[in-house]
Amino acid sequence: MVRFMIDTLIIGVGPAGISAAINLRKLNRTVRVIGKDTGQLSSLDVIDNLYGQGPISGQMLIEKGIHQAKQLGIEVITEIVLSIVSNLDHFIITTNKNNYQSKTVLLATGKPRVQIDLEGYETFKSKGVHLCATCDGLFYRNKPVAIIGSGVYLEQEIRTLENYTKDITIFTNGHDYNHDTYPTVKDSLCAFIGEKRLTHLKTSKNTYPFKGVFLAVNHPKAAELSLKLGVIMTDDNIDVDQNMQTNIKGIFAAGDCIGGRLQVPKALYNGFLAAHGINDYLRGREK
Amino acid sequence: MVRFMIDTLIIGVGPAGISAAINLRKLNRTVRVIGKDTGQLSSLDVIDNLYGQGPISGQMLIEKGIHQAKQLGIEVITEIVLSIVSNLDHFIITTNKNNYQSKTVLLATGKPRVQIDLEGYETFKSKGVHLCATCDGLFYRNKPVAIIGSGVYLEQEIRTLENYTKDITIFTNGHDYNHDTYPTVKDSLCAFIGEKRLTHLKTSKNTYPFKGVFLAVNHPKAAELSLKLGVIMTDDNIDVDQNMQTNIKGIFAAGDCIGGRLQVPKALYNGFLAAHGINDYLRGREK
Repeated sequence: MVRFMIDTLIIGVGPAGISAAINLRKLNRTVRVIGKDTGQLSSLDVIDNLYGQGPISGQMLIEKGIHQAKQLGIEVITEIVLSIVSNLDHFIITTNKNNYQSKTVLLATGKPRVQIDLEGYETFKSKGVHLCATCDGLFYRNKPVAIIGSGVYLEQEIRTLENYTKDITIFTNGHDYNHDTYPTVKDSLCAFIGEKRLTHLKTSKNTYPFKGVFLAVNHPKAAELSLKLGVIMTDDNIDVDQNMQTNIKGIFAAGDCIGGRLQVPKALYNGFLAAHGINDYLRGREK
Repeated sequence: MVRFMIDTLIIGVGPAGISAAINLRKLNRTVRVIGKDTGQLSSLDVIDNLYGQGPISGQMLIEKGIHQAKQLGIEVITEIVLSIVSNLDHFIITTNKNNYQSKTVLLATGKPRVQIDLEGYETFKSKGVHLCATCDGLFYRNKPVAIIGSGVYLEQEIRTLENYTKDITIFTNGHDYNHDTYPTVKDSLCAFIGEKRLTHLKTSKNTYPFKGVFLAVNHPKAAELSLKLGVIMTDDNIDVDQNMQTNIKGIFAAGDCIGGRLQVPKALYNGFLAAHGINDYLRGREK
């Protein structure tokens, strides 16, 4: 089901996302916030340097923010965003449960972290180890590839990868998961191995030869969503202008995923600026 | 009495000042906050776009912030800052009650506004109408000048002006105030009059010829404090670098007084950045 068109779909329920949502609502924009979980902040025991708040746990602050947004009539949904696709003058956002249409998208997904902390990751990143089947699948036409993951995001990436090769092996890295079509290895993963490029994937029990390995662990993070959209990043941070807009018109980013200090006041201000940047962008289109 | 040296004296008890204080305290710095009143924000009936807060009045938010700072052991004082003077490697801050010593100063005084909303102000600003006796008094040696004001700040400015001229007339603009030495006119003020430069000051009852008029209304605002320190401003906004430092080493500014969007999230982020900028600056000195 495709839902009716809204002004802004926000991905992320942390301070940046919710702050943007609240300010967009104030600007009379239709917004929807989609979040998977409460992210990095929720692991903090006490935050005591935020103006106007007494000491509060990260989890409590997140919940307070979500409650506040809902009080203002903002829909906050717990779904997993699998992809964002540009379609004429808007975007189609696919989650594990629905498709949404939105004129703009705000990425407020937190700090994009390396999907998997495995020896050799940095060495072979883009040299046999890839984050995006759409971007890099073509290089592995009819070649043996591994894909690491265990859920809906894995399945989506496999459907893309199948356009290029059927020689696919799934590695769950210890998770209990089975795929209908492709062989699945459940060993714990140990290392990416190779010389100039990746040649093998090493698990706790064996070493497997592959031309390429794709990562599709848990859910797509800012880095993966951005790569697929063609959003320019520097290191692991999304590049934005002063209005928090990326190089793709209509795609904005705020909070930890754009880098800088990973702190709540910065996330709030980013969210505030993004709200105004988005509003200005939409007004420009409405002329 | 000169109080013991602290790391940072913050002028302003709004979101920028208190946010900076809280974050400096977290960084283990000694801070003191001095505020005259609760400023512009306190006139807002409802703020409902601040993350983590339900709808709250400006006054309540200010009080909540001050309470929060005090809970963290930060001294928040209600005095009027009359001047800031650079002295070797620190600053001496004079209020209506005390002198303080501090290694750094943060100006978080809110939006510096025109001292007096009078016809001709913009036309004759710096052309006969002046904000700072220390800066511009010399141009009026032995000439007839007016000074507008009615309190301790007026008296301080007169003491400076007396170095240049004794031909001083005070205009209280309706306030009931008498000076020991100089004639005082209590009429309401109407306009600054002149051609290329100011020539007259017009009140509700009369028109007086003067070479120059100095303003010392209420208390010195960011603009006046900054002018006296030699801080560079653009229009009415204090220029700062990315660490919120002005052109004068050790003098920082944050919040509405540096311009940009006059909004709480921006003030909070400014305060946060200033705290870290100040801490980095002090660490550099401590090496």
